[in-house]
Amino acid sequence: MTFAVVKDILAGKHAVGDTVVLRGWVRTRRDSKAGFSFINLHDGSCFDAVQAVVPNSLENYSSEVQKLTTSCSVSVTATVVESQGKGQEFELQVSALEVLGWVEDPETYPMAPKRHSMEYLREYAHLRPRTNITGAVTRVRHTLAQALHRFFHENNFFWVSTPIITTSDAEGAGELFRVSTLDMTNLPLTDKGQVDYNEDFFGKEAFLTVSGQLNAEAYACALSKVYTFGPTFRAENSNTSRHLAEFWMVEPEVAFADLDDIAKLSEDMLKYVFKAVLEERADDMAFFAQRVDKDAITRLEHMISNDFVHMDYTDAIDILLKSGKEFKYPVAWGVDLQSEHERYLAEEHVGAPVILKNYPRDIKAFYMRQNEDGKTVAAMDVLAPGIGEIIGGSAREERLDLLDKRIDEMGLPKEEYSWYRDLRRYGTVPHAGFGLGFERLVSYVTGMSNIRDVIPFPRAPHSADF
Amino acid sequence: MTFAVVKDILAGKHAVGDTVVLRGWVRTRRDSKAGFSFINLHDGSCFDAVQAVVPNSLENYSSEVQKLTTSCSVSVTATVVESQGKGQEFELQVSALEVLGWVEDPETYPMAPKRHSMEYLREYAHLRPRTNITGAVTRVRHTLAQALHRFFHENNFFWVSTPIITTSDAEGAGELFRVSTLDMTNLPLTDKGQVDYNEDFFGKEAFLTVSGQLNAEAYACALSKVYTFGPTFRAENSNTSRHLAEFWMVEPEVAFADLDDIAKLSEDMLKYVFKAVLEERADDMAFFAQRVDKDAITRLEHMISNDFVHMDYTDAIDILLKSGKEFKYPVAWGVDLQSEHERYLAEEHVGAPVILKNYPRDIKAFYMRQNEDGKTVAAMDVLAPGIGEIIGGSAREERLDLLDKRIDEMGLPKEEYSWYRDLRRYGTVPHAGFGLGFERLVSYVTGMSNIRDVIPFPRAPHSADF
Repeated sequence: MTFAVVKDILAGKHAVGDTVVLRGWVRTRRDSKAGFSFINLHDGSCFDAVQAVVPNSLENYSSEVQKLTTSCSVSVTATVVESQGKGQEFELQVSALEVLGWVEDPETYPMAPKRHSMEYLREYAHLRPRTNITGAVTRVRHTLAQALHRFFHENNFFWVSTPIITTSDAEGAGELFRVSTLDMTNLPLTDKGQVDYNEDFFGKEAFLTVSGQLNAEAYACALSKVYTFGPTFRAENSNTSRHLAEFWMVEPEVAFADLDDIAKLSEDMLKYVFKAVLEERADDMAFFAQRVDKDAITRLEHMISNDFVHMDYTDAIDILLKSGKEFKYPVAWGVDLQSEHERYLAEEHVGAPVILKNYPRDIKAFYMRQNEDGKTVAAMDVLAPGIGEIIGGSAREERLDLLDKRIDEMGLPKEEYSWYRDLRRYGTVPHAGFGLGFERLVSYVTGMSNIRDVIPFPRAPHSADF
Repeated sequence: MTFAVVKDILAGKHAVGDTVVLRGWVRTRRDSKAGFSFINLHDGSCFDAVQAVVPNSLENYSSEVQKLTTSCSVSVTATVVESQGKGQEFELQVSALEVLGWVEDPETYPMAPKRHSMEYLREYAHLRPRTNITGAVTRVRHTLAQALHRFFHENNFFWVSTPIITTSDAEGAGELFRVSTLDMTNLPLTDKGQVDYNEDFFGKEAFLTVSGQLNAEAYACALSKVYTFGPTFRAENSNTSRHLAEFWMVEPEVAFADLDDIAKLSEDMLKYVFKAVLEERADDMAFFAQRVDKDAITRLEHMISNDFVHMDYTDAIDILLKSGKEFKYPVAWGVDLQSEHERYLAEEHVGAPVILKNYPRDIKAFYMRQNEDGKTVAAMDVLAPGIGEIIGGSAREERLDLLDKRIDEMGLPKEEYSWYRDLRRYGTVPHAGFGLGFERLVSYVTGMSNIRDVIPFPRAPHSADF
């Protein structure tokens, strides 16, 4: 008995005349007057379903086959034959069909075959993988993740898992989730009436990480090239289509690298994964281009075949000021750019991804490497048309005296950074890295406009079901 | 200017006579009376360092070269030459050496070149990647992770990121970390004086996940073959060498699979990743065999070339009862096996990995598929010599009536599982999966006896520094 998957049948991996067993779910059923039922069967292995032709000679034809509805699960024994109709080369001639699972009350089945809004599908996060759109997102997301791992592996990076639970708000990014095992109804208190975190699981106040960067630096300062790929968290109370409370980040960190090195790395990485997805998931990408965003494929092709445009923050400010555009947030040297500014630069001014470099020191994190001008730091953002910032990175301040000065100026607790300062005390090296929001990448590639639709079970304010 | 890495130099990727620039850290320095310094330089790209011969003709020879100590970072410009001595074919003839970073007070440098205990190294989790042993662990860990992703990709699995934050204690595993943004000093209370989690970030009490399985099932019931690879958490107050509060799990879930299918999958997977690590990290594995566990390599070779032994739980109990061994925990049909029992079976009785199957229903989770005998469930554990349980899995109960009965019997809150029950109401399919503790795998492969030494920044009771 040869078990087959839809992908292989459609690709002609099984010879015409071969008998195979296929297990999957009914997408649609149509009964012909000529004594056949045409059942579209899918199993998730690719975008398309395969057509299975079921003759009325089967003993369970009227008792079962004719009662099959969307999402019933079946196992069919069938012969691979050449297809007469439509776009597929091969189809199945069924000799036996076993029903594995019925759909209880098809009338009320939440994924009944009709158009559902994305908001509706979100309420059924456990069933939406059965839809065309979430299936396609899942395969593309997988392909992007694999391509990222492969890219870094081929370029001599080592994957490092940085901690999820941390006792320091190391980036000073605020908006943290607390992690605790204390009994909330009976909190231990100190003499001064404060919550006594000595009694907590970790003996200290603990949080979910916002970034693995500082930890990754410790490994880059020993193994030269490392990257993280793991979940990070923001307790930001923003219910937008671009924010998640829990999302995945990719953070390469490279010893002996400067800002231009990692700008190039970010470009190489994006082009590599875009190529992978176009080659490996042509079926799903065709769907996105047809049904979600007509530019889904051409946008990636454009990114692959064009150099990213490098631009200084200072020049970008000039361009924005001279644009004649009315922005909601005013533009001046020193301000942090808003999404509207980033999108103007990438979409309207350049029409291609822009790597914006050398931001004002005062709007950036303490660890960013200070430039000679005394005003800017060696930071970069990669701005992509259609989505804005997709990558943020910097050279890290490897000079202890300058790092300390910055920590002091910003009023950060130096003791908390003692281990991070050690990296500069002992054999310090220039190094640089960046962070890529993985869901933003998936969103960019698929054209899906709401980031909650490109992660299996999205977490947002007042939303952590399933 | 050609930048080179140690791995490529030692592998002969640069022709003799080529000039290269190598950036790295000093492992050791030895000055010869003939007017040379021999510096061992490493950059993390492989286990070995490369020998760099520095002549006293360099203008900074006495001012800098002769002051270099372990972990100073340097950039050398050098010619690749054939090596005269020892085990290496190639070495570097240095024409210029630039010091990038000195080591502050080499006498007190925590990673000074001497033997350190693993306990000592744990206190310097940010510096221990600079040691031979943690460097080797990091490369092996990376290689195992890559091989796992590759194995599943090649076998048509899709990676699914299941949520980290969850509002249900879905497995009923207890010992959860709470995730909250409530102000601990001013907790909102309900009318009844309970903590009002409506006011919390997610509008409900939320926790860190103990497993992605239930969520992965939702995806397997649409895409057939999926796997997770992500962090999971246990708030267990156990300070042992086998437990972490935060660890990574790999959880494949396969539709249309039964217990024997996933037993085979687990064996194929382990053999695949063991082969990968022996082929790709021969250098690091040689180190582990030499310095940590003399069986490190032979154990894997043995696993690769032998079939895993399948054994029924009921038979295992007989074997244990007849063993004549005095166990700390008594043996009887119905008890959960302890580490001592598992190790006896795998190490002494069989001398190979054992797949133990069909455990008593009453000691297993509600979702495991019930066998015909009415007493056991289709669960399995893979027990590896030297470490005990490394994989646990089961067929999942896909029959709604039997699942419901089990939920009721165990007094679990049925409403919480409504989405999980939906998977059985709509097109249910037989399916099965397992969980692999990634750190236990790394521990097994390297022979490292304490699991805290195979994860970069271990989290345990009263320990979440860095």
